[in-house]
Amino acid sequence: MAYNNNNNKQTRQRRTVRTTPKPKLKIIPLGGLHEVGKNITAFEYEDEIIVVDCGVAFPEDDMPGIDLVIPDFSYLTKNREKVLGVVLTHGHEDHIGSLPYFFKEINVPVYGTRLTLGLVETKLREHGLLNMVERINVNAGDTVTLGKNFKVEFIRSTHSIADSVALAIYTPAGLVVHSGDFKVDYTPIQGEMIDLQRFAELGKKGVLLFMCESTNVELKGYTMSERNVGGIFRQIFEDSRSQRIMVATFSSNIDRIQQIINCAIEHKRKVCVIGRSMSNVVKTAVELGYLKVDETTLIDPSEINKYTDDRLVIITTGSQGETMSALSRVASGEHRQVEIRPGDKVIISASPIPGNEKNVYRVINELLKKGADVVYDGIMDVHVSGHARQEEIKLLHALLKPKYVMPIHGEYKMLITHRDLVMGMGMPKENVFLMANGDVLEINRQGGKILPNAVPSGQIFVDGLGVGDVGNIVLRDRKHLSQDGLMIVVVAMARYSGEILSGPDIISRGFVYVRESEQLMDEAREVVCEALDECDRKNINDWSYIKTLIKDTLRDFLWKKTRRSPMILPIITEINA
Amino acid sequence: MAYNNNNNKQTRQRRTVRTTPKPKLKIIPLGGLHEVGKNITAFEYEDEIIVVDCGVAFPEDDMPGIDLVIPDFSYLTKNREKVLGVVLTHGHEDHIGSLPYFFKEINVPVYGTRLTLGLVETKLREHGLLNMVERINVNAGDTVTLGKNFKVEFIRSTHSIADSVALAIYTPAGLVVHSGDFKVDYTPIQGEMIDLQRFAELGKKGVLLFMCESTNVELKGYTMSERNVGGIFRQIFEDSRSQRIMVATFSSNIDRIQQIINCAIEHKRKVCVIGRSMSNVVKTAVELGYLKVDETTLIDPSEINKYTDDRLVIITTGSQGETMSALSRVASGEHRQVEIRPGDKVIISASPIPGNEKNVYRVINELLKKGADVVYDGIMDVHVSGHARQEEIKLLHALLKPKYVMPIHGEYKMLITHRDLVMGMGMPKENVFLMANGDVLEINRQGGKILPNAVPSGQIFVDGLGVGDVGNIVLRDRKHLSQDGLMIVVVAMARYSGEILSGPDIISRGFVYVRESEQLMDEAREVVCEALDECDRKNINDWSYIKTLIKDTLRDFLWKKTRRSPMILPIITEINA
Repeated sequence: MAYNNNNNKQTRQRRTVRTTPKPKLKIIPLGGLHEVGKNITAFEYEDEIIVVDCGVAFPEDDMPGIDLVIPDFSYLTKNREKVLGVVLTHGHEDHIGSLPYFFKEINVPVYGTRLTLGLVETKLREHGLLNMVERINVNAGDTVTLGKNFKVEFIRSTHSIADSVALAIYTPAGLVVHSGDFKVDYTPIQGEMIDLQRFAELGKKGVLLFMCESTNVELKGYTMSERNVGGIFRQIFEDSRSQRIMVATFSSNIDRIQQIINCAIEHKRKVCVIGRSMSNVVKTAVELGYLKVDETTLIDPSEINKYTDDRLVIITTGSQGETMSALSRVASGEHRQVEIRPGDKVIISASPIPGNEKNVYRVINELLKKGADVVYDGIMDVHVSGHARQEEIKLLHALLKPKYVMPIHGEYKMLITHRDLVMGMGMPKENVFLMANGDVLEINRQGGKILPNAVPSGQIFVDGLGVGDVGNIVLRDRKHLSQDGLMIVVVAMARYSGEILSGPDIISRGFVYVRESEQLMDEAREVVCEALDECDRKNINDWSYIKTLIKDTLRDFLWKKTRRSPMILPIITEINA
Repeated sequence: MAYNNNNNKQTRQRRTVRTTPKPKLKIIPLGGLHEVGKNITAFEYEDEIIVVDCGVAFPEDDMPGIDLVIPDFSYLTKNREKVLGVVLTHGHEDHIGSLPYFFKEINVPVYGTRLTLGLVETKLREHGLLNMVERINVNAGDTVTLGKNFKVEFIRSTHSIADSVALAIYTPAGLVVHSGDFKVDYTPIQGEMIDLQRFAELGKKGVLLFMCESTNVELKGYTMSERNVGGIFRQIFEDSRSQRIMVATFSSNIDRIQQIINCAIEHKRKVCVIGRSMSNVVKTAVELGYLKVDETTLIDPSEINKYTDDRLVIITTGSQGETMSALSRVASGEHRQVEIRPGDKVIISASPIPGNEKNVYRVINELLKKGADVVYDGIMDVHVSGHARQEEIKLLHALLKPKYVMPIHGEYKMLITHRDLVMGMGMPKENVFLMANGDVLEINRQGGKILPNAVPSGQIFVDGLGVGDVGNIVLRDRKHLSQDGLMIVVVAMARYSGEILSGPDIISRGFVYVRESEQLMDEAREVVCEALDECDRKNINDWSYIKTLIKDTLRDFLWKKTRRSPMILPIITEINA
């Protein structure tokens, strides 16, 4: 089998020194919604902790009103004196987005490559934290020491954002390699290709554990190089010489943007960037030298009308159909500077993230109805993924030949597929650790053991300025309100006599259109009156009893009449009369 | 070009009789959310109307609480004396689901094949309409006459439900062929293959307009035969001899169910059907002879425990991860009769409909965590679509060689792709009609013309027992409530003096978790008190003014403090004191 064990030497050494068992390294994936260890992972050895990545997740359908989801890192807050620093693999939101919330609790240095730190700085500036946080710039190939127990080596990698790295984490318990997000791109747009030689070298030395991402592990074969998209762009630019061209893509995909700019320059077109996040990233990338474009090529949105169609390319956000994005506003005719005209060529250089399909299709339909010529993934290959497929994942496993494997960055079904993949390469089933967020893996050369659910983990919801003040009860109420609306019953009662001074009045929202359902509302009021009369007859003054009675009676009545269950809020106002 | 015109003969005839221009046939797609003419289409000639299909759409994310979406067929209700009947292409919900709502308004005969009418009858029985509606049973190959102007021929077709037909609609304005939902399946599980010869024959005679479905028009190549899935099932049954097998699929896919039953019989396994809709359909299909299974094979859910794992197959609904479905309840351990055990083989024989991915993956993850061995689309080819891809669509166009084409059953981007496809076969651009629901195509041999938005069309929401009582205002309120919750301000005031007798009290739901945000609520109450004081100082008694002031003040305060906008409901109770 491919995975024959080259850690025998270590095993033999162990046998000679078994006096005191070595302490174990703890690895704790802490966040990423359904995806294990996507947003943040802690590595703990004795009294020291290092943190890898610190990102956000994006809210799902069952989290109405939520803006962002940050991981519950209370385990780290509780152990903050142990935390030595945060090490970043790359600059995507799901890997850096929680840093401001983290630094407010735990102020430690952050280590990252230049572009990654550039994007972190924009984020810290927005939160007024820039001067507070120590930022340590590293290059691929560098090794940094954290505390007594950790050394971290940054290994050149390739992904859909420049300056991505994998990590070799040296600990007294052994060497752990963390893939970060990666693909094996032999022809990246800038920088060098992924450092496969270094992976091989580490493999020869002996890797205890390989933590490998699983995003595309269900897909056979290889992910195409970013450069392929450039070829398709060139072809489209060639075929659209007289058309205005607009391209929507992810703002963080600087290599993609570079390729669009290169095509524009070849065809003597000016480039206009619209959308806030796109403008921010382009600015940072140009400043740091990750995006090569001369000043005369970039123009301001206000200058669009100075150029004829064949002399202009517009680059924009909104490739996921986000309602407030520039592309959505252009498609619906609500953008101040850009108006779609028949014959415009619009390229959507992205594929919809699951859950976003309907929004993306809505935008495409609107653009087509305005007469634009729309090119999207499926029609032409205008997008490639930034994540490795099966053959690339196998390649890294083959180079590293780790003793143990922890599939990360995936839902459970993907971790299982990843396990099956490496078992097919000869890895024993028991050497693959299937973790959940909050599980702790204790590992050293003698073996590894999962402590299930050993530390708190979960989601903290960010809604507006509030961090964590929206919990499950609030969300449950929001969902209830959204399903059937609400009905409020207001009664004013004399404090002592219990006499009804006003009401019952019924107010509803999101339940039925009242003007068309007057009879139903009258009947509902009648039902409440009867319940109140009953209380009066029985001399019941216990207001919580009265409230419950109103609620139950009205709920039964409405269910019978409408088969709906709105939230019912009985409000009794006490009057001193 | 392939599409050379074989309607010349008709053109020549026309020239000789141009005295009075012939009336035009009107074709009116009336419903299907984003999909043109998916749920219902009307054909009108002079004073006669026939209706093709009458289905429901399923609610989308932005329709919280809605159970079903039925088309607005008020145009037909208004012209009910013209309506001659409803002609059905097949028995899927999106083609028959609105019939009970339709028949309550317009009582006309319905025409369909045996299985289609069997499914309609179940539906009518549930609504207590069975004895009211005349049902006319047809076979593929039959032609029925409706009124003076319409003859409809039913053409054998193949789709993911048995007994599907395409329609040839003969009118004085010319012959219109309607594809219904179809794929070209040369090896269907039962019944004959799609009647390609008849399409060719009609093409030779001269087809005015081909209305062709576009569901899979963006996909290259051919859709595989249903029989392919059977081969994969046999392989899985062969490899899982000792495991209990459970298969989830669409309840309406009787051919799929037949293939599972065939495998079960081959392996001497009993078959247990769970899930209400699955049991209903299986019952109907067995009664009508569309599902061949002897009585000893089918067992009741209560008997499951009498059989060892290798002697049992469970067939269930829930392949879309629907929360209340049997499979979901089995996966979450909440099903009364079926409990997943490690080693169970679960086959999800469906692919997620866009929007359902997360629910489907949740179910898969839960099953895997319980130790089941889960096979789903992507891992193995356990599903095929029921809709034609590009090569099959081109085949029908080639056989029919219509003068005009109306792509139907698709979002705008799919209609465009369909147009490009037939233009590639030589069809002139101006002979392809791109319609929206509510548009009217007026057509005869002299040509066709679209009258945009000529009749009312749209969605009627069904929520519980209510049909149409939830409109856009109610939905807007539900969405608002789900985003940021609500805040109610209650004040009791003396009717004449305006003195505050009680309150202001603040009640919130879905906004913040009150116990943790007491300070915020106190401050909010303070803000309202100040607003009321101001009114008092200024001697303002206009209650609608006071309400607006409370609303505005509180809204500004909450936005500043939280960046959220809950719905604010000020309630002033008048007291005669």
